[in-house]
Amino acid sequence: METLSIAKSFEGMQGVYRHRSDACQCDMTFAMFLPPQAKDRPVPLLWYLSGLTCTHQNVMDKGEYRCAAAELGIAIICPDTSPRGDHVPDEKDNWQFGSGAGFYLDATEAPWSTNYRMASYIGEELPELIAANFPVDMQRQAIFGHSMGGHGAITLALKNPGRFKSVSAFAPIARPSVAGWSRPAFEKYLGDDEAAWRAYDSVALIEDGHRVPELLVDQGKADGFLDDGLRPWLLEEACEKAGIPLQLNMRDGYDHSYFFISTFMADHIAWHAQRLG
Amino acid sequence: METLSIAKSFEGMQGVYRHRSDACQCDMTFAMFLPPQAKDRPVPLLWYLSGLTCTHQNVMDKGEYRCAAAELGIAIICPDTSPRGDHVPDEKDNWQFGSGAGFYLDATEAPWSTNYRMASYIGEELPELIAANFPVDMQRQAIFGHSMGGHGAITLALKNPGRFKSVSAFAPIARPSVAGWSRPAFEKYLGDDEAAWRAYDSVALIEDGHRVPELLVDQGKADGFLDDGLRPWLLEEACEKAGIPLQLNMRDGYDHSYFFISTFMADHIAWHAQRLG
Repeated sequence: METLSIAKSFEGMQGVYRHRSDACQCDMTFAMFLPPQAKDRPVPLLWYLSGLTCTHQNVMDKGEYRCAAAELGIAIICPDTSPRGDHVPDEKDNWQFGSGAGFYLDATEAPWSTNYRMASYIGEELPELIAANFPVDMQRQAIFGHSMGGHGAITLALKNPGRFKSVSAFAPIARPSVAGWSRPAFEKYLGDDEAAWRAYDSVALIEDGHRVPELLVDQGKADGFLDDGLRPWLLEEACEKAGIPLQLNMRDGYDHSYFFISTFMADHIAWHAQRLG
Repeated sequence: METLSIAKSFEGMQGVYRHRSDACQCDMTFAMFLPPQAKDRPVPLLWYLSGLTCTHQNVMDKGEYRCAAAELGIAIICPDTSPRGDHVPDEKDNWQFGSGAGFYLDATEAPWSTNYRMASYIGEELPELIAANFPVDMQRQAIFGHSMGGHGAITLALKNPGRFKSVSAFAPIARPSVAGWSRPAFEKYLGDDEAAWRAYDSVALIEDGHRVPELLVDQGKADGFLDDGLRPWLLEEACEKAGIPLQLNMRDGYDHSYFFISTFMADHIAWHAQRLG
């Protein structure tokens, strides 16, 4: 693991690291913020999964998470959203597929299946690397994310019961296997058998019996992707049927950007902090 | 004036605007955050001047000013750092001169003197535009900035007594007419007569009798530009001789980046808020 940069911020340390990934068969980069409390003891770990087109850097620059994380003593890890590299297959002009659009799943279709294994990367490989290299308490993990990363956070929590003490999302894609902007990616990564898609779809996972203890979602009402891409009411309906307590905050006037995310970032971190103990 | 983008953030509105500048003879872009209080009454205005290589966007993305500004009811304006455009002369490969390096002065030497008139732009033209277009109280202005923008903020406050209720800086260039990374710019913009440079040099202005009521400066001790470029002790010495109360906070471990700036942003905004009433 190589340190690409490190800087003091809010009395903690914001680092960027690169390592060879077996899961993705390429070098992967992630950002990790360690709060000042990590100097004295292992701290809880909150995963932030980013949305389409993002790298680790967007939320590191614009997410405004360090103030709350430093105050509450929580490490924040921000992985990349896909494998990358000259040898990694991609559709250069398609922002909804390939680089920046890994959808936190393990692709099964060639040529994508060699590298696009973000579910294994985030679910297994990266946690092992983090546990071995940083003073974090892996018994106290939580996860959240934005848009495609909100979908990723919710599906990872649903499929790994017990690993995350809590899960929340900003403007998640509630039903990516059906939404127009993500369905083509599911087809290409996972093939024609729609049954296989259900393992990476929040609503389908809940319908199929997966559960989280509760869920917090913030969604801007002025989000241009609300009606066609995100549709939180589908998640609301599924949670209601399944008896999962969902706090869905519909926010007047907010869009899909980091101006929205950063506004409610401290709220989400405080909510996770309560559950991380 | 054209609105390039606008988004709700922290219950206020973060906008980006473009207008034709007479002072700079080109289109200029700036960012303006209006806190929620601006819906009800004119709010105080805090100017943030950015450092070398920056546009309006760096601090808008990474400065983390909206939370404190919204809470305290202060508008934050973030201008660009130089004129820009195909017709504007530049030294493309020089990050310390030309585009992104206007040094908040009015150039007197050809070919720079046509466009590089940032002192007039920030000092006269932009305030008039702002007063005419936004619900801000121009009787309650303050100014701060980073590095080259810290120099800009201090020199503008020194030269415009009464206009700004308060002035502060992150890692300002204390003596730009002497420091190695800024002296060549002074030569090219202002010519060989070093007497003319004193009008844009914080320390020289103080030596020449200009005053501000007090000054707040934060400086990272791990800042790579500290010893050669910034040298806050020169400012400290000048302030002491002149009887200007200076609060100089030397911060262990912090560098020159926005990771440093954002850490102390809320402190500075609160300090200005007290003085803006």
